Amino acid sequence: MRKLLKQIEFIKEIDKIKYIFRKTKLINSDRPENDAEHSWHLAMMAIVLSEYSNEPIDILKVLKMVLIHDIVEIDSGDVFVYDKEKSHDNFEEELKAAKRIFGMLPEEQAEEFLNIWLEFEAMKTPESKFARAVDRLEPLLQNTSNNGGTWREYDVKYDKVIEKKQVIKEGSEKLWDFAKNLIDESVEKGILDQ
Amino acid sequence: MRKLLKQIEFIKEIDKIKYIFRKTKLINSDRPENDAEHSWHLAMMAIVLSEYSNEPIDILKVLKMVLIHDIVEIDSGDVFVYDKEKSHDNFEEELKAAKRIFGMLPEEQAEEFLNIWLEFEAMKTPESKFARAVDRLEPLLQNTSNNGGTWREYDVKYDKVIEKKQVIKEGSEKLWDFAKNLIDESVEKGILDQ
Repeated sequence: MRKLLKQIEFIKEIDKIKYIFRKTKLINSDRPENDAEHSWHLAMMAIVLSEYSNEPIDILKVLKMVLIHDIVEIDSGDVFVYDKEKSHDNFEEELKAAKRIFGMLPEEQAEEFLNIWLEFEAMKTPESKFARAVDRLEPLLQNTSNNGGTWREYDVKYDKVIEKKQVIKEGSEKLWDFAKNLIDESVEKGILDQ
Repeated sequence: MRKLLKQIEFIKEIDKIKYIFRKTKLINSDRPENDAEHSWHLAMMAIVLSEYSNEPIDILKVLKMVLIHDIVEIDSGDVFVYDKEKSHDNFEEELKAAKRIFGMLPEEQAEEFLNIWLEFEAMKTPESKFARAVDRLEPLLQNTSNNGGTWREYDVKYDKVIEKKQVIKEGSEKLWDFAKNLIDESVEKGILDQ
């Protein structure tokens, strides 16, 4: 029972992810997406698009990755992918958060979750590359449905978008072809500046 | 490419689940939970609590179940578990929704998703029983954190709560022990009437 109570406390704690808002907005919307919605959507994308992974993947591990990858933001907050100052180098802060939050779980699970999160961050395994690919693809679907969305809002140019999004290629050549196409079309449509 | 485009259209369509609100509120909050947040939370609960399943389960299948189980509500809306008129007998409406929405996917995936959803609804397999158990447990954590939450709001009594929640037992005796305890404590605390 003591073990279950720890797990329940963790389950209640992670409810806070529903209050962490991202910069990107929902499809055809101006309402920002929160991390729970984002994580759910990535899980669905991973299931639906798994056939496009460059390498064979353990889909259960990918799902665990995308479901937990943003839990650290309960403590460290969301960092915008195009943020010029922080530019995602808040790893120490996120690691501290991972240790605190996953550390609420019984030891074995705490370790498993921390390792899965570290694997996602390191982006060296097929699973973490594919997880990152869907993580980068989702805002592309959102921005193109929202007349440029955060590109317009934060004056992000074509080269920067390509730089940030080409990581998709490491997880999936096929999804990168699709994404590159979408980015190029966005310039033609006038929703992304060169 | 045609196949991928169908999958992308599905991924965009299911964004609408983020606008479907449940009656239950977030933990320690008066803000209603939406179906994307709910589905994410159930997925996390399934991962964390899988050891308590009465029978061995394929956790990947449970995850697919909880992630997709409410997608039908994009068309058919959320039905409150304590609703006196509809009382969850809108199966035909939900089936139509499942066929339309999952039908946007390539044939093989459409069939897989429809079957997973039907399996969840029928609640006959170990996976669907466990998925249902976490689905019924989550609002219990929410209501007890919110001074009774929807029990107070809709004047739901102890016997009704027990009736609706005891299905947890079919998926997990251990989680039912915990849940039953929580319900009994709620009466003692005066947040649930007998």
